[in-house]
Amino acid sequence: MSEYDDATRLETGDDPTQRHGTFSEDWMIGNAVNGGLVMTTALRALGEHLAADPGETTEHVDPVVLSAYFMTASQPGPFTVTTEVMRCGRTLSTGQMTIHQAGDDGRPVERMRAIGSFGNLTDLEVQRQAAPAEMPPPDQCLSADQAPPGFLSNAKFLDRLDLRLDPDTAGWALGKPSMRGVMRGWLRLRDGREPDTTLLMLALDALPPVAFDLGLFGWTPTLEFTGHVRRRPEPGWLQVTLGSDTLGGGMMEEDAMIWDSAGNLVAQSRQLCGVRTPR
Amino acid sequence: MSEYDDATRLETGDDPTQRHGTFSEDWMIGNAVNGGLVMTTALRALGEHLAADPGETTEHVDPVVLSAYFMTASQPGPFTVTTEVMRCGRTLSTGQMTIHQAGDDGRPVERMRAIGSFGNLTDLEVQRQAAPAEMPPPDQCLSADQAPPGFLSNAKFLDRLDLRLDPDTAGWALGKPSMRGVMRGWLRLRDGREPDTTLLMLALDALPPVAFDLGLFGWTPTLEFTGHVRRRPEPGWLQVTLGSDTLGGGMMEEDAMIWDSAGNLVAQSRQLCGVRTPR
Repeated sequence: MSEYDDATRLETGDDPTQRHGTFSEDWMIGNAVNGGLVMTTALRALGEHLAADPGETTEHVDPVVLSAYFMTASQPGPFTVTTEVMRCGRTLSTGQMTIHQAGDDGRPVERMRAIGSFGNLTDLEVQRQAAPAEMPPPDQCLSADQAPPGFLSNAKFLDRLDLRLDPDTAGWALGKPSMRGVMRGWLRLRDGREPDTTLLMLALDALPPVAFDLGLFGWTPTLEFTGHVRRRPEPGWLQVTLGSDTLGGGMMEEDAMIWDSAGNLVAQSRQLCGVRTPR
Repeated sequence: MSEYDDATRLETGDDPTQRHGTFSEDWMIGNAVNGGLVMTTALRALGEHLAADPGETTEHVDPVVLSAYFMTASQPGPFTVTTEVMRCGRTLSTGQMTIHQAGDDGRPVERMRAIGSFGNLTDLEVQRQAAPAEMPPPDQCLSADQAPPGFLSNAKFLDRLDLRLDPDTAGWALGKPSMRGVMRGWLRLRDGREPDTTLLMLALDALPPVAFDLGLFGWTPTLEFTGHVRRRPEPGWLQVTLGSDTLGGGMMEEDAMIWDSAGNLVAQSRQLCGVRTPR
């Protein structure tokens, strides 16, 4: 079993709408559990709910779209995912996911609420897709191992990933952000677990924030994230690009696109982040 | 009172989480009430809920982000919006909106569920924004009045709007789609009601589907829509551009951007649509 599968494992009890798991410190980034892991955990819960319900269309195994709103930062420790199936149609099954953890006073605190749809992306006929960005191959990119000492000490999450940044968009790590609002890199799980459609949602939110390339090194918490999965990824490296055109009023937008090892666009997302000044 | 304000008017009863209204045939497009009107109605309900709740931050009057999932087509007639306030923070107040109508058997049928956040976009300092697209002024663009006879007979919604399409992206109306997946136009309400941040969510989904420019003239129902509002619009025309890079597996993505009369980016959105073959 891979680290990722282990981290998102859920247990069921008597209530078919509730599943329980434990967030690990190993997936933290800053003072929170990585939001991508929180989202894929929620998707796994809805997928298991759909599969377990004898009345539902069991071929809807691929998350196709997810909109997640983050209320409070997830912490290491137990959590509960509550799922609700909203509608099962011919093409998509749609449901809601909510993640709670016990707060300091023991009462449940909502971490994230999301709505998403599952479909089936087998043997998809694709008529139009964006071409992959041009960038050097992984062995000519910069790995986290080459980051300045102490730079990644606060990001255990990055130990789970093999992330290679395009040198052209990694100047921020040396104090020279390009100020274009661009980040490009290759990504795979360090334990060799191959990507699937659920894991793509984590990969869309796994690179360093594009804010770094704008010289903004404060915390940029995800407020809202919407990801679309376009097709099932081939095994191998994922090629991820981030961009941002909009920054103002203490918020910014971050757009991500992912191509698989066959050069096919497999996922894209947009998120709204807060922009906090570093202290 | 404007047609738009009238169409989204809500009445309250004893339950502070429920508001009631009536969808009019005047806002239909094809066999459904326009999804943009459904979304702005839901936002108005959440805005009224937030404003009425003495415990909430009443400065959060501008919708900043909305993610809506459409389950069934809204029909002319009474509806109920149910709102839930999920979290009120310093920057954003976040809540959920659900719209139901009575089905044929009288039982409630869910039309749309959405999560969204309100904030305050007064006197926003904007650091980065995309520049407006180049297009001819409204009086050199094509209005719906110039469309081929019968073309708009099924879209009463378009009578509410003054919509001027850039001739460069209107070839589809004469059977010559550009096949680039682009649509550009100017938009304002025909009754002169000026845009506000809530109305921008309707404007993001008001142009003809970008699918038309790809020669796809079937029904393209919105499955999921996420819109971001960037700032308050100045009075006057809205400049709207649509694009699409992704089409496959019976689904496509449609991206919209809106600039106001001062040339500022005020809103952008992405939606996932179904692509149905015309019969």
